[in-house]
Amino acid sequence: MANANDKVNQKAAAAAGATRAAATGAAGAAADADFVKEITPKNVDYSQWYVDVVRKAELADYAPVKGCMVIRPAGYALWENYQAGMDRRFKATGVQNAYFPLLIPESFFKKEAEHVEGFAPEVAWVTHGGGEELTEKLAIRPTSETIICSMYAKWIKSYRDLPVLINQWCSVLRWEKATRPFIRTTEFLWQEGHTAHRTPEEAEERTQMMLEIYRDFVESDLAIPVIPGRKSPQEKFAGAVHTYSIEALMSDGRALQSATSHNLGDHFAKVFDIQYLDSDGSLKYVHQTSWGATTRLIGAMIMVHGDDRGLVIPPKVAPTQAVIVPIMSKDRETVLSKARELRRRLAEAGFLVHLDDRDEYTPGWKFNEWEMRGIPVRIELGPRDVKSEQVVLVRRDNGKKEFAGMAGLEDTLRATLDDIQSSLYLKAKRFMEEHTKTVRTLDEIKATVEGERGFMVTGWCGDDECEDKIQETGATIRNIPFGQPAPGDVPACACCGKPGKYLIYCARAY
Amino acid sequence: MANANDKVNQKAAAAAGATRAAATGAAGAAADADFVKEITPKNVDYSQWYVDVVRKAELADYAPVKGCMVIRPAGYALWENYQAGMDRRFKATGVQNAYFPLLIPESFFKKEAEHVEGFAPEVAWVTHGGGEELTEKLAIRPTSETIICSMYAKWIKSYRDLPVLINQWCSVLRWEKATRPFIRTTEFLWQEGHTAHRTPEEAEERTQMMLEIYRDFVESDLAIPVIPGRKSPQEKFAGAVHTYSIEALMSDGRALQSATSHNLGDHFAKVFDIQYLDSDGSLKYVHQTSWGATTRLIGAMIMVHGDDRGLVIPPKVAPTQAVIVPIMSKDRETVLSKARELRRRLAEAGFLVHLDDRDEYTPGWKFNEWEMRGIPVRIELGPRDVKSEQVVLVRRDNGKKEFAGMAGLEDTLRATLDDIQSSLYLKAKRFMEEHTKTVRTLDEIKATVEGERGFMVTGWCGDDECEDKIQETGATIRNIPFGQPAPGDVPACACCGKPGKYLIYCARAY
Repeated sequence: MANANDKVNQKAAAAAGATRAAATGAAGAAADADFVKEITPKNVDYSQWYVDVVRKAELADYAPVKGCMVIRPAGYALWENYQAGMDRRFKATGVQNAYFPLLIPESFFKKEAEHVEGFAPEVAWVTHGGGEELTEKLAIRPTSETIICSMYAKWIKSYRDLPVLINQWCSVLRWEKATRPFIRTTEFLWQEGHTAHRTPEEAEERTQMMLEIYRDFVESDLAIPVIPGRKSPQEKFAGAVHTYSIEALMSDGRALQSATSHNLGDHFAKVFDIQYLDSDGSLKYVHQTSWGATTRLIGAMIMVHGDDRGLVIPPKVAPTQAVIVPIMSKDRETVLSKARELRRRLAEAGFLVHLDDRDEYTPGWKFNEWEMRGIPVRIELGPRDVKSEQVVLVRRDNGKKEFAGMAGLEDTLRATLDDIQSSLYLKAKRFMEEHTKTVRTLDEIKATVEGERGFMVTGWCGDDECEDKIQETGATIRNIPFGQPAPGDVPACACCGKPGKYLIYCARAY
Repeated sequence: MANANDKVNQKAAAAAGATRAAATGAAGAAADADFVKEITPKNVDYSQWYVDVVRKAELADYAPVKGCMVIRPAGYALWENYQAGMDRRFKATGVQNAYFPLLIPESFFKKEAEHVEGFAPEVAWVTHGGGEELTEKLAIRPTSETIICSMYAKWIKSYRDLPVLINQWCSVLRWEKATRPFIRTTEFLWQEGHTAHRTPEEAEERTQMMLEIYRDFVESDLAIPVIPGRKSPQEKFAGAVHTYSIEALMSDGRALQSATSHNLGDHFAKVFDIQYLDSDGSLKYVHQTSWGATTRLIGAMIMVHGDDRGLVIPPKVAPTQAVIVPIMSKDRETVLSKARELRRRLAEAGFLVHLDDRDEYTPGWKFNEWEMRGIPVRIELGPRDVKSEQVVLVRRDNGKKEFAGMAGLEDTLRATLDDIQSSLYLKAKRFMEEHTKTVRTLDEIKATVEGERGFMVTGWCGDDECEDKIQETGATIRNIPFGQPAPGDVPACACCGKPGKYLIYCARAY
């Protein structure tokens, strides 16, 4: 694909496209105008742009219950691919899936003090079931540490039973007033991993291992660069010793916590009495971890890669990687039969390919629809292309067109998809780098939050009071990134000016 | 595998096994005794046998909330394979997955009269959320017709939007007092498909298509023969025009409804106002279907194939198809390295294979554990086997042992697994046939229910009163099977003696 004739090739393809647009007539152009009109431009209203993309690409819809959403097939197909990408990585480290009940007795939920304080305000309560009022109300799980710990206490007896490495894919409920599809909803889908270990070191190793898996999945498959690091004590999970996160930067300069991994120490083990008989004959508490990623990663993908034409899906998670649009104004049967042959060939080669052979829409309408839906590559095939044994490939990420020979199209398509995947990542990484700056004072933080936003790198003394003051600016400490400078090289605390203990990333966050 | 030396081969392998058992010593024998003791024999207490198998094979455990269960990794891995088997078949017919909210407003739930009457007694209600009492209580979905219909009313506008073919994998709640893991629990996992069509004919075709998919999955993958047919009006889904089911026979002679498919007609469309503009310019109601299969199919597999040694898993859905047990009493490293090589080879050939290289358990203990867990094939490998370039294959279904050459083991294993799969099906089919008999009177039905049970084939006039009387015997009409005899050939009604309208299958059911 990368050859000296690239430019010529692209120009010719663009010209062919123009001729084609003329041939397909006014309907295509009109459809184009309508489509673009229906998505609010990013720079006019980012929030509305986001909602328009979600709605127009049919990823999700608002449900009748306030704060809930319906994940439509186009959105759920993304989630299925996310699940496959993460599940494969989890299982490669020995994790097994299981399913724990949706309902948690109030008494269980209340056992760990920090935990209940953190989650109680968000819980939905079941008070009646089977026609009767319940003697104890039941929480719909906002997370499953308590119910899972109660089972681990039964299952774990000896050091031989350790480690326990279990994950579940399920929905959870955390009551929300203000909502935003995928990013903040009362019910959402996620996975929650829960492990139990013999030693604190092993638990810490697992906590970081899972964060690294999230980093790898999000950067490799979603093409989203992230900052991995440790959360400040105020931002850690309710009941954890400490929490790690990966933080991504959205295209409006706000940060999004994209996954978290918690070292729970033996807090829950002590409360739920999860002890094992060690090889030395003594009873010991297990050391636990939990870690989760949610459907908000779909929101992250939309906000990092999407543009004013709609969604842009990285090829590795695209339910459809290429759509074939036949130009059937004349020689209908010839073109269609060639298009079908092509679909079969590409599907056999392992590509996820769709042939849009609908008669009731013009090619122009289809071009726009598939762009809006974020399909990585469009393959146009007209009567002239059939004659000259070629197609036109159009990239969603940068709009570039090029002719590609019918022979060897598999190789060209594979190379194009690979290039789109890496280009999306590099573009997002460049954006993140360009929107990361060093700040030295609270005023600078405040000005940045109210101005261009982005990541702010600075120093922090580690005091809660200083963190509170940072929060008052509208920013939060996103995390304390891995690879900290030597103690003497940490910048001074942006808040109190005292020597910095940690280099931190701050941002206004979703 | 099928050669003239089979018998000789098996005998030699059995002898080798005996020598080996002697070599592994008393520990193995003792473990054997313990294991068998821990599972109550079927003919002593079938119910206890079932619970013992579920518990010992670590498929599920009781949850702290009454009526709920935890699906443990060994059980969930089965469900993942069931999901894959069904999902693939659904998608091949154009079905897409989606996710609808867990919570349904009471007002939605109440819209279809029959539906609410059918489900209201089983519903769990959320009355408080986010620290406040709700203005309208919310049902945890017992099934999702109502919430899905409310969305379809928004999404479906034109005949171009039809058919809508959506499925979701989720958990549902139906309050239960008496519970039984997998078979009857308050919360269970399932899939529910919901489709909308332009014509009644298309809806009927889809209803039957999905039943046929269930039949194919259950018979081909789970090796469970079933009777497909239509439910009596009293047994149909609350709100449906009619319901189809597949009915299986458990090894205690009780029937289990294994999946259902409902033609909803336009009942829900009228209530939720799901209309489309047809090509003739007129507004019409859609015709709908819904269809579901649940984790009770795991219970069916246990009861159809399991025996007094524990679980028997059909190879097509086995998370582990073969377990390699190295006999490491001497030449430990040689045997282990050969076992590892074998595992790699078989995994590369696409088998799901596990190497049990644990040092803390004897081979005898391992043999029993993997038998209890239902792994289709055990591969034993000792020092002598390494020298003679062979292994011993032991089948879980019939206990037969045979030597198999190391070279070409892939082919032998594949043939063995295929043979186990078909043998399990044929054995279950023979059992079903031997436990299906023609009955002519209510007394015969009653005697059969109280005696040997099984399927009873008879005639029914179609009156509700006669169905009620059948129910009083403890049996129910399972379904009106497809392929009914010519009207004149239907047996007389077992209840009133009038001419039979339908040939029916009756049984005492779970």
